[in-house]
Amino acid sequence: MMLVDGMPSAQVSASDRGLHYGDGLFETMRLHDGSVPLLDRHLARLQAGCNVLGLAWPGAELLGRDVERLALPGGEGIIKLMITRGDGGRGYAPQPDAGCRRVAGRYPLPALPETGMQVGRCSTRLGRNAGLAGLKHLCRLEQVLGAAEVASAGWDEGIMTDEDGRVIEATRHNLFLVRDGRVRTPRLDGCGVAGVMRALVLEWCRRSHRHCSEDRVSWDELVAADEIILTNAVRGLVPVTDLCGRPVAPGPVGAELREGLAREGVVWLGA
Amino acid sequence: MMLVDGMPSAQVSASDRGLHYGDGLFETMRLHDGSVPLLDRHLARLQAGCNVLGLAWPGAELLGRDVERLALPGGEGIIKLMITRGDGGRGYAPQPDAGCRRVAGRYPLPALPETGMQVGRCSTRLGRNAGLAGLKHLCRLEQVLGAAEVASAGWDEGIMTDEDGRVIEATRHNLFLVRDGRVRTPRLDGCGVAGVMRALVLEWCRRSHRHCSEDRVSWDELVAADEIILTNAVRGLVPVTDLCGRPVAPGPVGAELREGLAREGVVWLGA
Repeated sequence: MMLVDGMPSAQVSASDRGLHYGDGLFETMRLHDGSVPLLDRHLARLQAGCNVLGLAWPGAELLGRDVERLALPGGEGIIKLMITRGDGGRGYAPQPDAGCRRVAGRYPLPALPETGMQVGRCSTRLGRNAGLAGLKHLCRLEQVLGAAEVASAGWDEGIMTDEDGRVIEATRHNLFLVRDGRVRTPRLDGCGVAGVMRALVLEWCRRSHRHCSEDRVSWDELVAADEIILTNAVRGLVPVTDLCGRPVAPGPVGAELREGLAREGVVWLGA
Repeated sequence: MMLVDGMPSAQVSASDRGLHYGDGLFETMRLHDGSVPLLDRHLARLQAGCNVLGLAWPGAELLGRDVERLALPGGEGIIKLMITRGDGGRGYAPQPDAGCRRVAGRYPLPALPETGMQVGRCSTRLGRNAGLAGLKHLCRLEQVLGAAEVASAGWDEGIMTDEDGRVIEATRHNLFLVRDGRVRTPRLDGCGVAGVMRALVLEWCRRSHRHCSEDRVSWDELVAADEIILTNAVRGLVPVTDLCGRPVAPGPVGAELREGLAREGVVWLGA
């Protein structure tokens, strides 16, 4: 089921600027037991993105109503919210009075390996653009090509590096690595999506006096990690159990993070 | 008027991967006197892009038929062809058997200043991604933000630089610069769109033994240029007459390039 500006529709205007230019943002949210537990955080990120792109903010009320309608049947799943800059004539320049269009849909929860993920290294790189880094905008061709590599290699996920070979994230997860008890996650000032679950983990670490640095991470440092944990808002925290053919053991820090977040109500992690 | 897969339609599937991920390519082509003079070159570039992205190629015949139908009313204008990877479920990975969707539209020719362009410098940067450089893909948020700067500053166009401050192109034009009779154009191995008109100019230079190098170009080198010429397939060659408030005189090399291309049948340049 899809909603376009709140109305059930499987169609959208062929002049939509999301289609023509990737001129918009999206959120992929976990639907659990008929509601979206992290809705407020998703909407806050969406609004922050609208501010960066100069996109009209439709308001939490309208978006919340879309989510409610899609969530009605209850159960588990994913709700995806898109905001585009609506219709545009030809040409990159947005109209100064451009509104926005909401496209929302509900999808089944993807399957996930039971124990952890077998992960490879994508040859597709992430371009660096400080102005767009962190945003979950609609220009995701790099992730598409990375995901095509993952599918064709038969991996569960693929690590993506930037043009300098620095580790940034996986195609649909952020990542944390642990070495000698020290937790790190790649800094996202040049590229990457600043995930809602990544932010939750960082906040939990700060509150729990468990040091976690946002850092430049080289491929060799990733390979040398004792633990690697992938995060997103759909599945929570998932350990990497194999990196490019080398076994990685799920370890105590990943378990600590999962338990810590679960105690704070993120009970559907990895469910 | 718009055609979706050859049928008149103002709507496209809300599940289109062009909308969700920018998973597709486009061409913006000049319609002159009822036909598209550079159609073969545009289709060749589109097909080359499809090969890079692993997109199904719909074939020149179908695309040519779309163009013919849109061109029927004759006259001047723009025809835009998009190819997307069609519908996708949720998730970045394309289906291995994914087809493609054609979205084509006809638009009026944009107005252009009579003598030349007043050009500023965009603060929005172009991210570097060698794998996508040169392609006219649907992920154009950088150009959207650049064009918004152009509009709000009241310029005719804006020069875009990469993350290192190197000059790459303008928001909707490639550029050539001339210094002491030497012609150069920014190398597009990290970002930028390899325009059809840019290729024509490079070919003409080669055939005419007029040296033109594809080069790294700094902002200072652009500022020091004797002539700056913007190119695209809609307008051909247009001189910059003002760069960030400093007058730039249209000069003999730009005139030579225009005359050279005109002699080879590109008679609608700057029309």
